[in-house]
Amino acid sequence: MNDFVRQLLTEWRRLNLPSEDETFVVAVSGGADSVSLALALDDLKKRKKLNLRFVVAHFNHNLRGAESEADENFVKDLAVKYDFELALGRGEISEKGNLEQAARAARYDFLTNIAENLHAHAVLTAHTINDQAETFLLNLIRGSGIEGLSGMKPVRNLDAEARGRGDAGINESDEDESISASPHPRASAPPILVRPLLNWAKRSDTEKFCHDGAIEFRYDSMNEDLAFRRVRIRRVLLPLLQDFNPKIIERLAATAALLRDEHDELERLSIQPLNEASKEELKTRDLTNLSPSMRRRILRAWLENRRGDLRRLDLKHLEAIESLIFSRKSGRFVELPDGETIVKTNGMLVFTERKVVKNPPRH
Amino acid sequence: MNDFVRQLLTEWRRLNLPSEDETFVVAVSGGADSVSLALALDDLKKRKKLNLRFVVAHFNHNLRGAESEADENFVKDLAVKYDFELALGRGEISEKGNLEQAARAARYDFLTNIAENLHAHAVLTAHTINDQAETFLLNLIRGSGIEGLSGMKPVRNLDAEARGRGDAGINESDEDESISASPHPRASAPPILVRPLLNWAKRSDTEKFCHDGAIEFRYDSMNEDLAFRRVRIRRVLLPLLQDFNPKIIERLAATAALLRDEHDELERLSIQPLNEASKEELKTRDLTNLSPSMRRRILRAWLENRRGDLRRLDLKHLEAIESLIFSRKSGRFVELPDGETIVKTNGMLVFTERKVVKNPPRH
Repeated sequence: MNDFVRQLLTEWRRLNLPSEDETFVVAVSGGADSVSLALALDDLKKRKKLNLRFVVAHFNHNLRGAESEADENFVKDLAVKYDFELALGRGEISEKGNLEQAARAARYDFLTNIAENLHAHAVLTAHTINDQAETFLLNLIRGSGIEGLSGMKPVRNLDAEARGRGDAGINESDEDESISASPHPRASAPPILVRPLLNWAKRSDTEKFCHDGAIEFRYDSMNEDLAFRRVRIRRVLLPLLQDFNPKIIERLAATAALLRDEHDELERLSIQPLNEASKEELKTRDLTNLSPSMRRRILRAWLENRRGDLRRLDLKHLEAIESLIFSRKSGRFVELPDGETIVKTNGMLVFTERKVVKNPPRH
Repeated sequence: MNDFVRQLLTEWRRLNLPSEDETFVVAVSGGADSVSLALALDDLKKRKKLNLRFVVAHFNHNLRGAESEADENFVKDLAVKYDFELALGRGEISEKGNLEQAARAARYDFLTNIAENLHAHAVLTAHTINDQAETFLLNLIRGSGIEGLSGMKPVRNLDAEARGRGDAGINESDEDESISASPHPRASAPPILVRPLLNWAKRSDTEKFCHDGAIEFRYDSMNEDLAFRRVRIRRVLLPLLQDFNPKIIERLAATAALLRDEHDELERLSIQPLNEASKEELKTRDLTNLSPSMRRRILRAWLENRRGDLRRLDLKHLEAIESLIFSRKSGRFVELPDGETIVKTNGMLVFTERKVVKNPPRH
């Protein structure tokens, strides 16, 4: 058995994923990572190691005209050649706001729908340790807390991903949605998201797998566009870091995994105080007596309760709220990215939703 | 009052440092950071904000010939001009091993001796948030745990620093030596190490302070030598990171401070299980049942008990010991940097000191 295929099977078992009677949706862009994942799974199926139904899913964002069409056709041909069932999606992304985030949200919506319709066990994505290292650096540069630095999880709730929560700076690992894969059929359980390459495969491993098997794959021209921060990190920053440490990709991914463990431990040890966060308003005096770590943990949980999620919140917002808590001046407030405000009144932190001017007030 | 001086006084009070009847040793290399610190303290003394005895201490490592002499003469002149008491030290560094670490150890030995002889309250060093950001990146690139990433502390035990523990990858913040400054006289207490610029001053602030006051300072030619990792980080890596985020220095220092808080919280919450680490040998079955975070915390404490310190241990050693714990094969062992071994025998982890071949066995 090919080394890449064998390692994938080892990880499949380590993650406790089922080996029969289930459906998996494999997200395939056409790049080396996702093509390797799909074909290695196909190999394991043909060897009767995994008796599973694999459905290849491709989403055409329509962002690159003829190139997007060619990607779609490439995945169609791949499905025919290897006898995969195929699900295709298409979307027009409005270019307002963050293009990458919008494209990502549309793609995950599509994948979630397909998986739900097929009663699939999971959506599989081909994120590698390179992606993990890049995500770590993106969050480090932006200024994330320990969750942001703990990067992507190998197994997680798909719903949270579809809502784009994986991109929130202080919320990358969305602690409360961590779940374990189960080998037992989960009749009505929603599909999960699994990244079976994340813990062990480098991008060079997937390229080697394709090369060794004379397997074609597509290059995404966006991966060359230095206008994207992630591309600059991959093309400029990481090569420089490799001059310092040739194993930097593995190191950064290991650091992310390590911080995730530390973060999980903190969550486990601080369940009681977190109940505080369900309150409507927080008493600032209670917060000043806590350790900084616990104070921020409660603030995050409280903000998530009030806002519904932690999107677009960075460490600087938490720091501003902490200043507010310790400030002796009254009438000060902190503005959050979606226009909500946190005001300190009579020793209480009060959350106020954004005032909607053009539309009637929401209730 | 000059802005820099005012901020130093604010930090002095925030750190709860005494303002009268005590002696402080100010480590002055002659660079902008330490010259600014010494002269700002002198200004506060002249304004009667601090009624303290400040002794300038300079250590000549003799590494750069005439340049080292010129640095020493510069600090001598500075002491005369501003009426500082002066302590001078000189050392020959053997160039075996890590030059920077050896120079640092000799310097801290000198500073500790001076401080002890003067019954000083503390040694003051002029580390800035730039130094903190650089330390964070050095440890990130090397592969450190959460302690290494949590960087330097503004107040700590001087003895630990003199022993060079501040350089150990998994031990940068040496948790058990964290102490609080006290404004009360500490008759027989050993001197502490305080970094009164670390939390707020950038290198550009100290350069501006010198420039505004027409104060001369020395450039260290080693700061231009790209053979040193720290210099490459300062001159090559950080400017690139600034293209991503102009506030990257502040961000990295804030991340280090944040991870220190998380780490302190973990230590606080896990005092009970750490008693395990005082045992001679560790039962591997007990360790497999723990969270990864707790397991590594106990392993670190155990290794520190067995070895005396955690010098030269990196994350990769801890990872190897973890593999050993979970391995089903018997007779495997892990070798540590100083030649000690960890063997798994009958379900126990056993620490064996380095075998000394040329000299008689140690007992």
